[in-house]
Amino acid sequence: LMKYFLRLFLHTIMVAAEVALLINVVFSVIGYFLTIKLIPSFAEHFIVANLYGRDLNKKSDKKVPEALGVICGAIFLVCMFFFIPIPISYCTGIIYSTVIDLLLYFIDNLLYTCREFIQFIGALLSICCMIFLGFADDVLNLKWRHKLTLPTVASLPLLMVYYTNISNTTIILPKPFRYIVGSEFDLGLLYYLYMGMLAVFCTNAINILSGINGLEVGQSVIICISIILHNLVELSGPVAAYHRFSLYFMMPFLGTTLGLLRFNWYPSKVFVGDTFCYFAGMTFAVVGILGHFSKTMILFFIPQVLNFLYSTPQLFRLVPCPRHRLPKFNPETGLVGMSKARFKPSEMHILGSFIIRIAEFACVVDVKRGLGEDGQYMEINNLTLNNFLLKILGPTKEQSLTIILLCIQAVCTAAAFFIRYYVSTFFY
Amino acid sequence: LMKYFLRLFLHTIMVAAEVALLINVVFSVIGYFLTIKLIPSFAEHFIVANLYGRDLNKKSDKKVPEALGVICGAIFLVCMFFFIPIPISYCTGIIYSTVIDLLLYFIDNLLYTCREFIQFIGALLSICCMIFLGFADDVLNLKWRHKLTLPTVASLPLLMVYYTNISNTTIILPKPFRYIVGSEFDLGLLYYLYMGMLAVFCTNAINILSGINGLEVGQSVIICISIILHNLVELSGPVAAYHRFSLYFMMPFLGTTLGLLRFNWYPSKVFVGDTFCYFAGMTFAVVGILGHFSKTMILFFIPQVLNFLYSTPQLFRLVPCPRHRLPKFNPETGLVGMSKARFKPSEMHILGSFIIRIAEFACVVDVKRGLGEDGQYMEINNLTLNNFLLKILGPTKEQSLTIILLCIQAVCTAAAFFIRYYVSTFFY
Repeated sequence: LMKYFLRLFLHTIMVAAEVALLINVVFSVIGYFLTIKLIPSFAEHFIVANLYGRDLNKKSDKKVPEALGVICGAIFLVCMFFFIPIPISYCTGIIYSTVIDLLLYFIDNLLYTCREFIQFIGALLSICCMIFLGFADDVLNLKWRHKLTLPTVASLPLLMVYYTNISNTTIILPKPFRYIVGSEFDLGLLYYLYMGMLAVFCTNAINILSGINGLEVGQSVIICISIILHNLVELSGPVAAYHRFSLYFMMPFLGTTLGLLRFNWYPSKVFVGDTFCYFAGMTFAVVGILGHFSKTMILFFIPQVLNFLYSTPQLFRLVPCPRHRLPKFNPETGLVGMSKARFKPSEMHILGSFIIRIAEFACVVDVKRGLGEDGQYMEINNLTLNNFLLKILGPTKEQSLTIILLCIQAVCTAAAFFIRYYVSTFFY
Repeated sequence: LMKYFLRLFLHTIMVAAEVALLINVVFSVIGYFLTIKLIPSFAEHFIVANLYGRDLNKKSDKKVPEALGVICGAIFLVCMFFFIPIPISYCTGIIYSTVIDLLLYFIDNLLYTCREFIQFIGALLSICCMIFLGFADDVLNLKWRHKLTLPTVASLPLLMVYYTNISNTTIILPKPFRYIVGSEFDLGLLYYLYMGMLAVFCTNAINILSGINGLEVGQSVIICISIILHNLVELSGPVAAYHRFSLYFMMPFLGTTLGLLRFNWYPSKVFVGDTFCYFAGMTFAVVGILGHFSKTMILFFIPQVLNFLYSTPQLFRLVPCPRHRLPKFNPETGLVGMSKARFKPSEMHILGSFIIRIAEFACVVDVKRGLGEDGQYMEINNLTLNNFLLKILGPTKEQSLTIILLCIQAVCTAAAFFIRYYVSTFFY
């Protein structure tokens, strides 16, 4: 009899989980339509409130509302708020009816449900806090160092929930290391540092690969789809619960973000602001950590990592860095080309000039020397992936550049899946 | 042996809870110092970002940064984030070590801890969401109807957590009703409506009793102290856990709010914005609901309720309502007096003119008729508690008016305690 109850119970849980996923999809679709309805009706408010920019890559000079990512984020939150009781109430209802009979069998399940619920709300808290701080950053134009502290603050609830609920800081080592230190290794506090840095990485990685219409949102959509694919594949595996948890977040994110993309796509009717980059990055970090696939998730960020590495000389001020590094628009041809930084060689850090020399030799940077009236100035293209592509392709339409970058992102996803499902089998 | 373990266990829980309260106090003090340190360093950012107002009750015309409540709220959140694992880890650590031996005894405790944790994070989510939406309101100057919808949205996580965790919608009726419908009554969905409306009430009650330096923050401080006193009294009673839960929120709130008050007190160096009113109101609503003392909490809002009732003719546009209703500053005397609304009698709703006639008869409104060149206009004082007091007291210093209003608030708290601990014994 007990076995029968147990099987019935597990079956009901599974059906309930599938129903929950279905409801989640419905909410995501509603989220999409809400976003495309609310963005135009709020856009004017943003311009009145002085939250606007001008599109440097267009001939017209009209005001484009900025930081509309906040609408997208708020709708995402509302969808998730309504979803809070769905996956839980199904399960707990069943648990309560049988808890007296099968206490010992179900105690684990009960605790698991409870924990998953705590993680769900903790994750929402991190995302909500990130949207709020991101919007504050957009409004107040905070300094560069805040770009590192804000995601750290917002990831606090996540880390605390992880600490109280999971506390597992042991990692499984790849095979080459196993001979030295064994197959497992407890990172302890370092693991929390890793999680905090993952949030900083995800938010800023998206933030710095930007500057042309639709790129921030477009790359987020592709990363999100990659994660959803990964989750769906793993849904039939042994850790399905983790990946279902991730899907609960990724689908409403996809819905609301697609809504935003409609307005942010070339020619942009709205800009998304740092708010969106923070929101997207934190959502990815949250599902990566609580879904226990943070390594796989980093693989989906290959173009962002390349862009970051290529940018480091300017980001760390080894080479002078102008305020804007977005590609330069040529009003006569209507095409965008490389934007350049012009400076005296003496303004470079010694390490910077060494790096530039190597990069010049490897043909990855466009360097011109002896410029200006007395030949004192030199010029390099700004070190972003956008400019690197323009160096190879020559001047291009802005929209084509976005599409090419998004294709690269998609190809990298394919590479990531290859690494995750084929190459990694040699190491784990 | 089991009894011994049980007693040891309960004792440890109690000690742990006291330690947690102590840590909470320390965090609150840190919150205070962080607030007074960060507000001046961020104030300039707000002015640059066009978030400022001018103090109409001062001779000088300089810009005062607006919406600084967001700093206070953010620091409160950070304090709470760090506090997340404190009350839990103590308890669960103990539970895990004994769960094998005393499973049946501790299952209830375990579930209770788990639920309390979920409520804690859910409450933070509501508050975080409210601060975020409040700040968006300050920046975007949303319309009046949003003042009702934003708190409803932010209270969603709270309601959802209540639904999944507690689901108790039964109320105990006062004695006079017991003969008719029995001693208990299940409100069902209406109870959720009540909770949602409590959030709307608390946020807006504070928002409309404002207009002079330090009043919003001052009244919040007094309400907060009243709640803390109530919690401390109940801490030795049968539902101590609820009131400890409330204290966890109220003490950091008091710390950060006192920090804000230092800058918002006469003469205000910063304004707090709707952000603060939303933040304070939602925090009160959250502890009232999850601490199960919402009726007592409403008693602490007597001046706000009176102000709301007195304001209704203008709020519902039965009587014309000017954009600003704050007391009027007289630059010659340096005193503030009643501000007035001037309009033709025909602009009033028929119900409005009826109410004004009664109020005039009862001497609670100052009415002048036959004004203007052709005697077509009439004038009444704007219907706020501030103006009502000024009608009684005559022109007063702004600071004195604030102090008098805060004294009234304190007296009302005393009345509330009298009702709660003496009068209510006749009914419950």
